[in-house]
Amino acid sequence: MTDGRSNTGRLITFEGGDGSGKSTQLHMTETWLSEQGYKVRVTHEPGDTQLGKEIRRLLLEGEYTPVPECELLMFLADRAQHVREVMMPALEAGEWVLCDRYSDSTMAYQLAGRKLADLEGLNSMLSFAELGISPDLTLWFDLPVTEALHRIRSRSSMGEASTRLDEEAQSFHESVHAAFAKLHSVHSDRISRIDASEAIDRVQQQIQAVFTERGLV
Amino acid sequence: MTDGRSNTGRLITFEGGDGSGKSTQLHMTETWLSEQGYKVRVTHEPGDTQLGKEIRRLLLEGEYTPVPECELLMFLADRAQHVREVMMPALEAGEWVLCDRYSDSTMAYQLAGRKLADLEGLNSMLSFAELGISPDLTLWFDLPVTEALHRIRSRSSMGEASTRLDEEAQSFHESVHAAFAKLHSVHSDRISRIDASEAIDRVQQQIQAVFTERGLV
Repeated sequence: MTDGRSNTGRLITFEGGDGSGKSTQLHMTETWLSEQGYKVRVTHEPGDTQLGKEIRRLLLEGEYTPVPECELLMFLADRAQHVREVMMPALEAGEWVLCDRYSDSTMAYQLAGRKLADLEGLNSMLSFAELGISPDLTLWFDLPVTEALHRIRSRSSMGEASTRLDEEAQSFHESVHAAFAKLHSVHSDRISRIDASEAIDRVQQQIQAVFTERGLV
Repeated sequence: MTDGRSNTGRLITFEGGDGSGKSTQLHMTETWLSEQGYKVRVTHEPGDTQLGKEIRRLLLEGEYTPVPECELLMFLADRAQHVREVMMPALEAGEWVLCDRYSDSTMAYQLAGRKLADLEGLNSMLSFAELGISPDLTLWFDLPVTEALHRIRSRSSMGEASTRLDEEAQSFHESVHAAFAKLHSVHSDRISRIDASEAIDRVQQQIQAVFTERGLV
């Protein structure tokens, strides 16, 4: 159940480390749901508002390095803008919102990855930024870190711009992975684990099976 | 007393509405303290770091309008960067830091002005952003709103760029003024009221008297 809204829209979040294939799967899921007649809105964090794009630029292009507290607050500022400007109107209009990264990414990257804030403080700031909009379902794309880094490096050598976050040490990615695993174990009612090491079509089949099993479609 | 640091530096914050003359007085105070041999660092919020200048540009130049939650989180992000990059090093080096706007401005503008968050939530987010750095003394420049608006409008007609905040309705400035008055009454141990309606030199005399009375110089 989703707090804070009375409507027929649904929020599905796609979570996992970089290189886990979640963005590709999000677009395949969009196609699948659209074919069934659902109105689907695809969005991503950070940066899916005009203001958010500026915030994303400041955060990821490395011109100035934010201190950890600043980085988290900037991500949360982007979150608040995104929730009010994009997600709330779509959900109120009864759309399915497929969001590439949301609360669990904030938790995994900031809390576990950078060992920054206490859990209670972070939860309280997330609540403030998210205005009661929580996911109906979260898909966690679980992929071993060595495989994820291999994928990131091939992508990078194919000319895609790498970001500051891609350049973090392997130990950081390991911490993030462990944090996602922990979140999955604590919130198994909301978070479904997807084996992201399988072939693209098999991963999509897993996703469709989760939607069916949970009675969402 | 200042929490979270063991040093001989002091943090003095200059607070009040726009047009209250606090920035002019801050620079006069800098001169006065420097003449007495203190090492003084002058700084301001928002925007006194490279990253903060970008945040300030996003917030005040009105290209994209942030939702209230986003605006607050951006101010807090700027705060965190400013505290770690500028204030902590200066305080640790034993300097006097004179800061144009700090926590009380956040409180007054966001909480009272925009009636946004609950007090407890805002306090918790401020603590996160400020890392335990709280003022040894806060000077509140108290000026009736009609006089402040008169000053802002003359400044504006003299060619200085007006910002989005200057253009808010008078009722907003009244709420902010009431919020500063409330903060002063609650924290009278830390906040000294300065009658900002007096002539510039008289205002500076008031400030120097406060420093002396409190045994700061």
